[in-house]
Amino acid sequence: MNNFRYHAYTDIRFGKGQVACLPELLAPYGKKVLMVYGGGSIRKNGLYDKVKELLAEFEVFELGGVEPNPKITSVRDGVEICKKEKIDVVLAVGGGSTIDAAKVIAGGTFYEGDAWDLVADSSKIGKVLPIVTVLTLAATGSEMNKNAVISNMELNQKLGTASHDFIPQASVCDPEYLYTLPAKQTAAGTADIMSHIFEQYFQKNTEAYISDRFAESLLKACIKYCPIALKEPENYEARSNLMWASTQALNSLLSCGKGGAWTCHPIEHELSAYYDITHGVGLAIVTPRWMRYILSEDTVDKFCEYGRNVWNIAEEDKYCCANAAIDATEQFFKDCGIPMTLTEIGIDDSKIVLMAEDTVKYNNLKAAYVALEEKDVEAILRACL
Amino acid sequence: MNNFRYHAYTDIRFGKGQVACLPELLAPYGKKVLMVYGGGSIRKNGLYDKVKELLAEFEVFELGGVEPNPKITSVRDGVEICKKEKIDVVLAVGGGSTIDAAKVIAGGTFYEGDAWDLVADSSKIGKVLPIVTVLTLAATGSEMNKNAVISNMELNQKLGTASHDFIPQASVCDPEYLYTLPAKQTAAGTADIMSHIFEQYFQKNTEAYISDRFAESLLKACIKYCPIALKEPENYEARSNLMWASTQALNSLLSCGKGGAWTCHPIEHELSAYYDITHGVGLAIVTPRWMRYILSEDTVDKFCEYGRNVWNIAEEDKYCCANAAIDATEQFFKDCGIPMTLTEIGIDDSKIVLMAEDTVKYNNLKAAYVALEEKDVEAILRACL
Repeated sequence: MNNFRYHAYTDIRFGKGQVACLPELLAPYGKKVLMVYGGGSIRKNGLYDKVKELLAEFEVFELGGVEPNPKITSVRDGVEICKKEKIDVVLAVGGGSTIDAAKVIAGGTFYEGDAWDLVADSSKIGKVLPIVTVLTLAATGSEMNKNAVISNMELNQKLGTASHDFIPQASVCDPEYLYTLPAKQTAAGTADIMSHIFEQYFQKNTEAYISDRFAESLLKACIKYCPIALKEPENYEARSNLMWASTQALNSLLSCGKGGAWTCHPIEHELSAYYDITHGVGLAIVTPRWMRYILSEDTVDKFCEYGRNVWNIAEEDKYCCANAAIDATEQFFKDCGIPMTLTEIGIDDSKIVLMAEDTVKYNNLKAAYVALEEKDVEAILRACL
Repeated sequence: MNNFRYHAYTDIRFGKGQVACLPELLAPYGKKVLMVYGGGSIRKNGLYDKVKELLAEFEVFELGGVEPNPKITSVRDGVEICKKEKIDVVLAVGGGSTIDAAKVIAGGTFYEGDAWDLVADSSKIGKVLPIVTVLTLAATGSEMNKNAVISNMELNQKLGTASHDFIPQASVCDPEYLYTLPAKQTAAGTADIMSHIFEQYFQKNTEAYISDRFAESLLKACIKYCPIALKEPENYEARSNLMWASTQALNSLLSCGKGGAWTCHPIEHELSAYYDITHGVGLAIVTPRWMRYILSEDTVDKFCEYGRNVWNIAEEDKYCCANAAIDATEQFFKDCGIPMTLTEIGIDDSKIVLMAEDTVKYNNLKAAYVALEEKDVEAILRACL
């Protein structure tokens, strides 16, 4: 087992009505709050009004309209408000995109240059404003982790950055906020959660038994509850398990004792950078093709373990078991209604070479579970067409 | 799923050589450190010298000799030093007993009356000194939780207390410190870990799917690795998984979305209060008898789930499956070399009625998985003879 640090210090308030804790959670940091949110769904479901009502004693500034695949332009707008108004704490109300934008805003406030620098080079992140979140989507885990992914459409770049101080101080996770999600967001969010788990589970280290069993536990939760949530959007048991899975899948718990670079996320980030597609959809398309591409004598035991422990596949032959597990993964995404080819979402082969180049340029795929070069990424992307 | 708060904020530094982080972990709190430790095993294995060397820049005061089942007398001694020397931070170097004592010392420092008040009534705990730990035993989870259990031999009481501020700020967890543990401590520590998991797993709530799968993951880790650690005390994979299991088993992760009072710990606390036995041994003896006593139409499905998911028991009949799981639990403890009757550890029936009375008096067993009265506790204890 590798040495590790585990310090997921976010104060999670999980369950029905927990938004009522907001004043208590924000109070330690001051009165001036920048409330960051997305495209307006929180206005439709009443959450915007509820938060404003709860924060009557605070001085609330607002940055709305943060996009899916949040753009650096929104971040810059937020930084400007924080600097000008001397904001004390950033409150993100939304999904991962909103929270990610809030993180870079919180860091950008104390940075003299352009906030994009903090995305391109995380070592430039210094002091960070405290961050509190109200989560409305089960997907990225951003509510309890140090990561932020920001897009720069001028540069066709979608890059991840991170800081220990980006970990939110507190997050309100109320599964009822998921009731009104469109089916495709529920499905794409689940694919994102599962991909986070895969990226940590499929690594070379074999000694981190607990992390691997925890990973399988969360995968089984996704597989059990996503179909239920799609059929019964207001099923609390399904929504609450999906929401908790999203948080636990990427708060560093699953990588305790493990290590290694990720693969599918870097590849998907290029798809989003060039085509602005839904992150989870891109991941669902790439994942099974990546799995098939890297299946070999070196990896078959791990895929077989995945098949046995997650899908209850009884096949004795290990390649049969591994392939059945990969097929089951692809079929699961398909059954959730996710388009499973690039062609279906309007992407042809014209930029595949370019995207493969960029994937390798901006990420250390040599440290991945199976080291990949440009030609490998290109082959995986072609298999996705 | 019940609403919950999850705020396990301890900064865990896990792995070989992580004790080197100590100066960095203590520095934020000040220079005056009270180092609390136990019976001297840290002098034998070199850890005492290592810590003293690392803390050359700090002013270190010492409280050694903290007992297993730590006594309030030791706590009082520590409080006196903290008050007199104006200590900034309490450093516990040891197992759960040492850490538990350190917690009540840290709370007692700001309390005007006798520290036992904070054990008898947790609502009296106010401000608490910051606590940092170096863990040397995989058992109680005290390195990442709010609990402390202290004994008062004058009153024949062993009581648990808790405060959110008792959660250590940081804990160094180096599995190599477990290499020199006597086999009986390895076994008893594992029984303690497993009991913590059982207390949270066997509860009425059925919606907390993730917590239940996580619980099974940790149980499987204990069952896989304890026998290995007993045979090969320096097997790092076994020691690291047991150490991480101990931390995760009782940092509130497994009770997320669940609830209900505990049973075996309250019963064992009376055994320890009257006979000062090893906590984990008492738990191993009580647990299978408790399981058999509460097995009924109401609980059989849960025991069967336990059998299928943890012990891979294929029995179709649910009572057969449940009983096989309970038998396997008892046999596992026996195979680990734990004495499995009260008679073997020198306890007869003379105080059983008294202990049953006290169990019910000091704990809310009505809120347990299966509500128990005095006569039930008495019957369980008699089955342990």
